[in-house]
Amino acid sequence: MAIEGSKQQARAPRIRLGMVGGGAGAFIGAVHRIAARIDDQFELLAGALSSTPEKAMASGLDLGLEPSRTYGSYREMAIREAKLKNGIEAVSIVTPNHVHYDAAKEFLRRGIHVICDKPLTSNLADAKKLKKIADESGALFVLTHNYTGYPMVRQAREMVANGELGDIRVVQAEYPQDWLTEAVEQTGAKQAVWRTDPAQSGAGGSTGDIGTHAYNLACFVSGLELDSLAADLDSFVDGRPLDDNAHVMLRFKAKGAEKPAKGMLWCSQVAPGHENGLKIRVYGTKGGLEWVQADPNYLWFTPFGSEKRLITRNGAGSGPAAARVSRIPAGHPEGYLEAFATIYTEAAHAINAAKAGKAVDENVVYPTVDDGVKGVAFVDACVASSKRNGAWVKL
Amino acid sequence: MAIEGSKQQARAPRIRLGMVGGGAGAFIGAVHRIAARIDDQFELLAGALSSTPEKAMASGLDLGLEPSRTYGSYREMAIREAKLKNGIEAVSIVTPNHVHYDAAKEFLRRGIHVICDKPLTSNLADAKKLKKIADESGALFVLTHNYTGYPMVRQAREMVANGELGDIRVVQAEYPQDWLTEAVEQTGAKQAVWRTDPAQSGAGGSTGDIGTHAYNLACFVSGLELDSLAADLDSFVDGRPLDDNAHVMLRFKAKGAEKPAKGMLWCSQVAPGHENGLKIRVYGTKGGLEWVQADPNYLWFTPFGSEKRLITRNGAGSGPAAARVSRIPAGHPEGYLEAFATIYTEAAHAINAAKAGKAVDENVVYPTVDDGVKGVAFVDACVASSKRNGAWVKL
Amino acid sequence: MAIEGSKQQARAPRIRLGMVGGGAGAFIGAVHRIAARIDDQFELLAGALSSTPEKAMASGLDLGLEPSRTYGSYREMAIREAKLKNGIEAVSIVTPNHVHYDAAKEFLRRGIHVICDKPLTSNLADAKKLKKIADESGALFVLTHNYTGYPMVRQAREMVANGELGDIRVVQAEYPQDWLTEAVEQTGAKQAVWRTDPAQSGAGGSTGDIGTHAYNLACFVSGLELDSLAADLDSFVDGRPLDDNAHVMLRFKAKGAEKPAKGMLWCSQVAPGHENGLKIRVYGTKGGLEWVQADPNYLWFTPFGSEKRLITRNGAGSGPAAARVSRIPAGHPEGYLEAFATIYTEAAHAINAAKAGKAVDENVVYPTVDDGVKGVAFVDACVASSKRNGAWVKL
Amino acid sequence: MAIEGSKQQARAPRIRLGMVGGGAGAFIGAVHRIAARIDDQFELLAGALSSTPEKAMASGLDLGLEPSRTYGSYREMAIREAKLKNGIEAVSIVTPNHVHYDAAKEFLRRGIHVICDKPLTSNLADAKKLKKIADESGALFVLTHNYTGYPMVRQAREMVANGELGDIRVVQAEYPQDWLTEAVEQTGAKQAVWRTDPAQSGAGGSTGDIGTHAYNLACFVSGLELDSLAADLDSFVDGRPLDDNAHVMLRFKAKGAEKPAKGMLWCSQVAPGHENGLKIRVYGTKGGLEWVQADPNYLWFTPFGSEKRLITRNGAGSGPAAARVSRIPAGHPEGYLEAFATIYTEAAHAINAAKAGKAVDENVVYPTVDDGVKGVAFVDACVASSKRNGAWVKL
Repeated sequence: MAIEGSKQQARAPRIRLGMVGGGAGAFIGAVHRIAARIDDQFELLAGALSSTPEKAMASGLDLGLEPSRTYGSYREMAIREAKLKNGIEAVSIVTPNHVHYDAAKEFLRRGIHVICDKPLTSNLADAKKLKKIADESGALFVLTHNYTGYPMVRQAREMVANGELGDIRVVQAEYPQDWLTEAVEQTGAKQAVWRTDPAQSGAGGSTGDIGTHAYNLACFVSGLELDSLAADLDSFVDGRPLDDNAHVMLRFKAKGAEKPAKGMLWCSQVAPGHENGLKIRVYGTKGGLEWVQADPNYLWFTPFGSEKRLITRNGAGSGPAAARVSRIPAGHPEGYLEAFATIYTEAAHAINAAKAGKAVDENVVYPTVDDGVKGVAFVDACVASSKRNGAWVKL
Repeated sequence: MAIEGSKQQARAPRIRLGMVGGGAGAFIGAVHRIAARIDDQFELLAGALSSTPEKAMASGLDLGLEPSRTYGSYREMAIREAKLKNGIEAVSIVTPNHVHYDAAKEFLRRGIHVICDKPLTSNLADAKKLKKIADESGALFVLTHNYTGYPMVRQAREMVANGELGDIRVVQAEYPQDWLTEAVEQTGAKQAVWRTDPAQSGAGGSTGDIGTHAYNLACFVSGLELDSLAADLDSFVDGRPLDDNAHVMLRFKAKGAEKPAKGMLWCSQVAPGHENGLKIRVYGTKGGLEWVQADPNYLWFTPFGSEKRLITRNGAGSGPAAARVSRIPAGHPEGYLEAFATIYTEAAHAINAAKAGKAVDENVVYPTVDDGVKGVAFVDACVASSKRNGAWVKL
Repeated sequence: MAIEGSKQQARAPRIRLGMVGGGAGAFIGAVHRIAARIDDQFELLAGALSSTPEKAMASGLDLGLEPSRTYGSYREMAIREAKLKNGIEAVSIVTPNHVHYDAAKEFLRRGIHVICDKPLTSNLADAKKLKKIADESGALFVLTHNYTGYPMVRQAREMVANGELGDIRVVQAEYPQDWLTEAVEQTGAKQAVWRTDPAQSGAGGSTGDIGTHAYNLACFVSGLELDSLAADLDSFVDGRPLDDNAHVMLRFKAKGAEKPAKGMLWCSQVAPGHENGLKIRVYGTKGGLEWVQADPNYLWFTPFGSEKRLITRNGAGSGPAAARVSRIPAGHPEGYLEAFATIYTEAAHAINAAKAGKAVDENVVYPTVDDGVKGVAFVDACVASSKRNGAWVKL
Repeated sequence: MAIEGSKQQARAPRIRLGMVGGGAGAFIGAVHRIAARIDDQFELLAGALSSTPEKAMASGLDLGLEPSRTYGSYREMAIREAKLKNGIEAVSIVTPNHVHYDAAKEFLRRGIHVICDKPLTSNLADAKKLKKIADESGALFVLTHNYTGYPMVRQAREMVANGELGDIRVVQAEYPQDWLTEAVEQTGAKQAVWRTDPAQSGAGGSTGDIGTHAYNLACFVSGLELDSLAADLDSFVDGRPLDDNAHVMLRFKAKGAEKPAKGMLWCSQVAPGHENGLKIRVYGTKGGLEWVQADPNYLWFTPFGSEKRLITRNGAGSGPAAARVSRIPAGHPEGYLEAFATIYTEAAHAINAAKAGKAVDENVVYPTVDDGVKGVAFVDACVASSKRNGAWVKL
């Protein structure tokens, strides 16, 4: 091994965690639990893991929870845990989108920190109400836009912020997948069913499920805010009520005297050959960079007029923003779970600071309820623009 | 070497060729001359290589032309060569865009075949007039959309035509470059000066110079025709009168009962890190494919539900459409000049068939004046849409 | 997310774990701890984390161990933990090589399972003695040749075993790194100091540190056993007593009537541009495959006469051997820590089966003390061959 | 297009060229002819294109040769052309290996320059005799180790020569192919038949056909000379009399006070998945670089301690040695035929200088008869070492 002194977290007591959703058969619940364990900052102690009580109990026991802390509903869990001496301090909400609002509300209003899947809610009204509740609660709200946890995404963001790309002119974001190329929701595949159901997902299909990630990352890396968009949405699969492909043109807000940056966003779930093809490219007056989620330990950077460089996680050219959220030396790939774990660890930093009554370290970064509102607003704008034949819609 | 029986052209007499433009200091002229030599179907015998007579003469002598066939103007060349017993049979026009129309006219009306650089003309009116002239001339008109000459582009086109991708849903085309990131035209760089000058280039900057290539290739490979587009054009460099970045949303015409395909096109000359980043991706109900100009011997193909495959030029999975225009075995890369040479060789097939009074072989494919009109119409539509704030414009 | 039903371990009580080595400043200790947590099968309860008692105590407290279970020596830990009612069931040994033998002995003879870093010991005599002790102990011995835990390595192994490559002819293994290009051990860098010190590492430098990994993986994937080798070892950096570059020719034992396979192994720690460049390629009569550690979610497979295919972890073409040790869907990269975790989880399966008095599931695979003996024998053979000017040495 | 002033050869009269071998059905003859045309320095005027007179005549006519200069044997051609007023000045010899010696002799002794395929001859005695003949003839002898013509190979060589890699320590060369995985020679495939026949190819199979290329390139780029080698050769396909796989360890001669560099060379024609996998990697005290023939416009360079850089042909970081032999701008890929053409153009520079009685420009580089002798000696040493069980053999 090449590098000394890999990160070793100073020990603080583990944060007591509960979970809503994520019972047997769920995908993202297991991801959250691994993510919470990797850096050893959380201890899962309670759960309302399924809306079916027997499944909830079975799943809880399977995870080693005490039966008394395996709940049949999130509301019951919120009420009881808030009263326990060592009740949970934080809760992970990993349900379909339409449950986020109500579940989060129950915990926030009891001062329990919320770590919630994206998109924030299934409609913009709920999102705004939830923001208000979160802001007034005093509890923290962490949205798991997990791709922001990748070290080379942090590196990219830092390079843009440091001016290494100059003024940003163009941002190209894309997120193609292929798993909805055929009408799998009609075969009952659970992940497909709720994601293509407006009642559970909201107004956006691919835009909500993955477009929000691409949009979030485009802004996270570029440091820009979106001004307006023009979108053309399609449902290529017969009978699918939500979009499965979206082409979006982007106009960002100007920063100072610079010309406003432009961009494109393409998300698709009907693009054969793409498993999970999230890619972000940013171009400025001084250079360009490119990051691809499937190869997350690499960042391509071209200073204008010079050779393209391959910056690797913790390798030469990789700076402190990446190192802060990195665990192992260059050449030893970290992946999706580690990036997801970083969101949890950032949350732990923030929660521990809050418990200690201290300001959180300025390097701690995590997506918040504000990012969640922006994401739902993005979906709304896409749908609105597309209905108006691709007219520009302000965010 | 691995493979027997590489292509060896049956010998027909070389076609007598002239050239307009392409004198000392020009880039594309030298490319045309190499391309014309590679398959040995042409013999360069005359030229009006520069609008400056002394340069024209010096360049002609440098290329080994007889002084009597080194002309001070294309008009003079057209008139005299048409009268010579063994005058030129075809002419290559490799000037800036605004000269194409008038030069081509002079040769076409004298029955001399024209091989012309793209974009066809600097405005749509000229393009349409030129089409009429060409159609009425009896001479052939070959437009050097040279990227259509790459074997794996032919392979891709054949696979789409054969239904291997199913119904096409999405086409993503992009063509980023970085050489105009700074205002090099203000330093007098010849290639930059005319390409950023509306008088010489027409209404499109990056759209005309490279967007037309991407558009042509998107249609060539997908077999689709564009219905309408919505474009957002920018001139990021201060003082540049033509676009240097364009974001375009595409709506194709429906084929039969299929839902119409959608797409995006991005072209840019201010994207650091991209030397010549032409890329085409096509997705259908049965599979997807991807081709990148910088790595032209590869074609990525994913049949939906199967592994991604790397089809190589003349390797396994590569069919007759690629083999027809390929010279050497798999693993021995062919490049840009060979693809360009294929345009010339296709032109030779067509010219030889015309001379013999025969129908040209049905496998012979080359871009024509019609593709040229479409390209100029594309630029016009982009400019028109962008002026109308990205409204959809019919082609 | 694309795929349902990701792996969710059935809950068994966590295995009580101790650790020898891995205190503050160590690299691999932290890796072991994360690996032990990822699938939640172990609980770290005791440690002899440093040979310096104060450092041992500080590191233990930092990790949240009870002070009474933070020991000043591994011997003390072995004696006391063996007597505790809920003493550790397994121990991770993560010290420099020369300590492995003595430490492992103490735990094995008390029936405590051992999970030990590679190479097994610093000399072959110790390795053989340790094998005897392990075999007689009734305890399990797991060697962390962690690269065998990567899903696509499992996939490759399964494809070879299934005959998809036909008879194996050639195996090319390489493991270049660059971190010892300069004499960093002379600057006191801890990781470099012990790895270049024969007293701590044994007779092999790069051969022991990384060559053993490449050798293990070559055999693991190909299913072959090495018959003999011819090696040329160098210490390019002045004053370095151990090899930092090794070229090795390999002759494998014949399987049945097949011609024996041949191979090469190159390991280097002075190859600029390689962070951790482990790569394995296997070629047979029916096909070839290639796996690169830095891009571990990909496996390239070419059936002879067909296109190269990109098999992705959990994607199309990826089978049950990969899926068994995989946590998340295709397109969501897993990395080094997950592969390392798989070694721990395989160990947990074996330990749990042993506790239950049952045979372990036949799919459970982990490197054992036998692999460890082979690795040390490989280093010995490399050194012996090189001293005899590259003569062939039998394993 | 991005770059001004692409190379335009000053016009000298075309060199009159003949060809031996390369009739219908041959592969490499067509390659030579295209290569000779690309830069327009040669004119093919005579040929002894086949050892079968009728085939020779048919092929000559097919290529447009005058019947009187289409010969039935190379000896006849040499005799007559030497007497013609405008007889050929140079000849390309593109036959199977065993003909090279005798054919070359006939032309050299008549003062006709020879451009000859590799390996030089089918045995070392012939090679040495041919060198003597060539040296005494006053004619030039150019060996088509065509891979030395790639611009990025020139770039790599220049970087090593300039000291950008420091002292060279390790050279890794490999050249795997897969086209002889099965016994295709038994089906009569012409290319396979002569390459696996000792009478036509000499003592080396893969070593002679492709190993010599890899060896030549390793020395060309590194600037090193080989001191000795140890080889293990195999014929994996039953009944094949020549090697189809070779593993070779290399020891180079020391340069000054440096430790001598080491290396490996692997060539194989039974490695499924490799079409033409020539790759060269060079590592020194200050950096490492990698070049892959299938992607020839790229050169990977890592200055030790810095990010890996992608140098592209004519792009940033690409210097004059590459530009000298490059025709088109960065991003427009050149390939195998262009590299081959460069050998011809270098030969033309040398021939023109000889005609003018001038010293050739110092930048002109091409492989000579000396390289040919070295290549045959390499094959001999491989065979000798392998027969002696891999003992080290001096070159």
